[in-house]
Amino acid sequence: MLPFSSDGQAKKTANLHDLNEPLINHAEGQLFLNEAFQIIVEEVLCKGTDIKQKVCEWKEPEELAHLLDLQLRETGEPQCRLLERVRDVAKYSVKTSHPRFFNQQFGGVDYHALGGRFLTEALNTNLFTYEVAPVFVLMEKEVLRGLRQLVGWTEGDGIFCPGGSTSNMYAMNLARYRLFPEVKSQGLWRLPRLAIFTSPESHYSVQKGAAFMGIGTDNVILVKVDDGGHMSPEDLDEKIQFAKSQGLVPFHVSCTSGTTVQGAFDPLHHIADVCEKHKLWMHVDAAWGGSVLFSKQHRHLMKGVDRANSVAWNPHKMLVAGLQCSVLLLKDTTGLLKQCNSANATYLFQQDKFYDMNLDVGDKSVQCSRKVDCLKLWLMWKAVGSIGLAERVDKAFIHVRYLVEQMKKREGFHLLRDPEFVNVCFWFIPPDLRGKEGNADYWERLSKVAPVIKERMMKQGTMMVGYQPLGNKVNFFRVIVFSPLVTKKDTDFFLDEIERLGNDL
Amino acid sequence: MLPFSSDGQAKKTANLHDLNEPLINHAEGQLFLNEAFQIIVEEVLCKGTDIKQKVCEWKEPEELAHLLDLQLRETGEPQCRLLERVRDVAKYSVKTSHPRFFNQQFGGVDYHALGGRFLTEALNTNLFTYEVAPVFVLMEKEVLRGLRQLVGWTEGDGIFCPGGSTSNMYAMNLARYRLFPEVKSQGLWRLPRLAIFTSPESHYSVQKGAAFMGIGTDNVILVKVDDGGHMSPEDLDEKIQFAKSQGLVPFHVSCTSGTTVQGAFDPLHHIADVCEKHKLWMHVDAAWGGSVLFSKQHRHLMKGVDRANSVAWNPHKMLVAGLQCSVLLLKDTTGLLKQCNSANATYLFQQDKFYDMNLDVGDKSVQCSRKVDCLKLWLMWKAVGSIGLAERVDKAFIHVRYLVEQMKKREGFHLLRDPEFVNVCFWFIPPDLRGKEGNADYWERLSKVAPVIKERMMKQGTMMVGYQPLGNKVNFFRVIVFSPLVTKKDTDFFLDEIERLGNDL
Ligand SMILES: Cc1ncc(COP(=O)(O)O)c(C=O)c1O
Ligand SMILES: Cc1ncc(COP(=O)(O)O)c(C=O)c1O
Repeated sequence: MLPFSSDGQAKKTANLHDLNEPLINHAEGQLFLNEAFQIIVEEVLCKGTDIKQKVCEWKEPEELAHLLDLQLRETGEPQCRLLERVRDVAKYSVKTSHPRFFNQQFGGVDYHALGGRFLTEALNTNLFTYEVAPVFVLMEKEVLRGLRQLVGWTEGDGIFCPGGSTSNMYAMNLARYRLFPEVKSQGLWRLPRLAIFTSPESHYSVQKGAAFMGIGTDNVILVKVDDGGHMSPEDLDEKIQFAKSQGLVPFHVSCTSGTTVQGAFDPLHHIADVCEKHKLWMHVDAAWGGSVLFSKQHRHLMKGVDRANSVAWNPHKMLVAGLQCSVLLLKDTTGLLKQCNSANATYLFQQDKFYDMNLDVGDKSVQCSRKVDCLKLWLMWKAVGSIGLAERVDKAFIHVRYLVEQMKKREGFHLLRDPEFVNVCFWFIPPDLRGKEGNADYWERLSKVAPVIKERMMKQGTMMVGYQPLGNKVNFFRVIVFSPLVTKKDTDFFLDEIERLGNDL
Repeated sequence: MLPFSSDGQAKKTANLHDLNEPLINHAEGQLFLNEAFQIIVEEVLCKGTDIKQKVCEWKEPEELAHLLDLQLRETGEPQCRLLERVRDVAKYSVKTSHPRFFNQQFGGVDYHALGGRFLTEALNTNLFTYEVAPVFVLMEKEVLRGLRQLVGWTEGDGIFCPGGSTSNMYAMNLARYRLFPEVKSQGLWRLPRLAIFTSPESHYSVQKGAAFMGIGTDNVILVKVDDGGHMSPEDLDEKIQFAKSQGLVPFHVSCTSGTTVQGAFDPLHHIADVCEKHKLWMHVDAAWGGSVLFSKQHRHLMKGVDRANSVAWNPHKMLVAGLQCSVLLLKDTTGLLKQCNSANATYLFQQDKFYDMNLDVGDKSVQCSRKVDCLKLWLMWKAVGSIGLAERVDKAFIHVRYLVEQMKKREGFHLLRDPEFVNVCFWFIPPDLRGKEGNADYWERLSKVAPVIKERMMKQGTMMVGYQPLGNKVNFFRVIVFSPLVTKKDTDFFLDEIERLGNDL
């Protein structure tokens, strides 16, 4: 067979049987990577954070699919074409690091975290054994320790999970297992009907978790909230007693520190009293709000958190560690997590290893492969220290205070309430609707304002912010200010832009 | 207050209240990132794949913790110190891309995939809505379509999950929901006891999933396997009938294409017959073996896969896409996945959006934040085409054939059986033990050989390979050959090195 045959098949076969040749060319590959890196810096990190550039380049799905030429084919493409693809993906993606991306609970960029993420990707290992992840087994432990310390626990346990929803599920599973260890082998059939308590403003992952874990969403009992969205400890107590009287077995209370929409912090101390009284597992979903623990000034919002059994916290949100970075922290010191989740697979967790098998943390997880999510947080923390992280939290509150002051000075902005956290919920009232609260169609008309402003903003690409209804409140905007890239210019722009986009409605 | 005060506190306060200044300095940050990138290329990609360098630099945990100085402090560190940290993390981490890392079902490096991973990290978005991930919503769909096509399905559904264990759990949840949709709201209490069927050689995630989802590990019924580790369809049929006679309700069969240890492919056609007869959900865990579907020559191993209801497949394993990259593929066209998992959160999945809400795929997931795992696979696939991916699979089989031939020529290597896939399971019999199979302590002594060789190999850092017992078989090595970086030199070295490390035992 000719090695340089123009016939693909022949060349292929020749290649494959030459076992002296690897299939990857390092020099070529590194050239590509280097050029891709330059494009990333230019498109995503420079242009993508430049306020003179758009936050998003809106395209209709059909057009975008066409532009990207997504189809996967039999044959490969040359490097230059692939580099164009890197550029296109960057170009048409939303710039979540842009200072005017206010859409979500993540955003911004921290270069040390990003460096950690690149290193994580290059090292491509798996957090299950010390054998394959010596550095990261130790590092995860240290980061968990550091975070637990902020909660107020000198001892305990924990694990990084692929997101806060998963962390919340782990907590439910642990609560259930603590009460009924036989659930692991026997399932739920022999057990009484179990009940979870949470507020209607808690994150939807509590519902998803209950469904996934065989508990059922009907058995998630919603506790009343006050106007600010805080769970009522009195109602919690009553609902628990009522559930018991109906033959249910309460086992888990999921409170929230920083609710998704309003940013409310449930009163943890009072809830802890109720949980103690009924001997229930107290979980704090601090996926969003947990970062206040860094701040001397604001950590009072989570007073009582040390009385919880578990805390979920997403450094990928307010701390800008980058997706995914979420932890479950546990007060437990009895090894509950491992007992609950272990399967003792002998191919991975051999019992005759030459090092301490407690370092093989993977069996604490319900995953097998588990991505290394600690390095980015560790490196960022090393770079700015606890003080630097506290400053970011404090500064976010200062920005929010400024934004709220400005809103109050402008006619069209109507706050749902003074914010407790960095979520600012407001209606924009277009001039035509002002002073017409009494009209029969007022709320109906107001509910249509946010979607139209949103559509215009997306199509022009100037900024991004989300809206939603909540309970009996019609569509309102939720602007979240926390990115370390934001300046006054951006919050001022935000207000001007909402007016520009909505004044004619 | 003096802006350049040497008093940290004063400077801090001044800074924080100046809302014109962002907390991140782009120029400094990008300088750091650039230098970190150079270190990554040098340490991880050049040295880390160089056979003259070690696969791992073994340190005892205490020493390593000390070397890394992991502790998190109040104050930050200068850039140069942080760059040293990047180098240290790289230095003491296992080089999973090294051609002599045979330890796991992942390894190797593909530069296009890695470029895609860096881009994913920089773009830092979330696969829940078209709004924040327009490119990736469309791309995920296309990649899922491409993978489904290889299964033999022109239609269907699917989702990227954080690992094969999660994909397997999703399949169980769907099977349960299809049979009893009320499980989502009511939980398992009103339902009969449900039973899952799998082989004892299936991955432990089936057990973990059953525990997590409230089904219980006792209700995972193990079906007999033959010597090669293939599930027996006859025994499956019998076990299902027996379970029914005991009042259990079988609902899910989890077969494996490429078992973790032996690499066995369950006979899908025959199992499909049994599943059809009993109307059970047939799931194929092809996390490990799925990649054979790219190969015209080897795809017969999964004949019948198109008759399954769902397939889990991890491109982060054999295809070298990088962790994490795992999909669940579904034949269903009725929207079961979304019905089963949706919570319709109005803050995220608004119903009055200006674009087609079916593009907001996030509600199909039990996660909320969901990492973008499709880009790396898409870019790699674009780079080498389906033909290139098929070649990698074919070449892996050729390497394995060569390795097995060489083993048969050497006295000390005793195969458990001829491999069906790229897992080669063997005992190394040191000279002292050869021909002594009849001795009473033979197996006992043999069981101690692999752990000692392993310890020596780790401490010298020359290569990595795993061992385990299985059923009544004492500790044996499982060497997996699939990395596109491997050459004959590496497989030859592997054999020599095992002999060198074990000849005196
Ligand atoms: C309060 C709260 N809990 C949990 C979550 C879920 O976290 P994740 O998106 O990482 O699953 C969120 C995310 O929006 C949240 O706001
Ligand atoms: C056959 C099989 N299924 C499932 C898994 C689990 O996949 P993951 O590690 O991505 O959770 C593995 C991983 O080793 C496997 O070998």
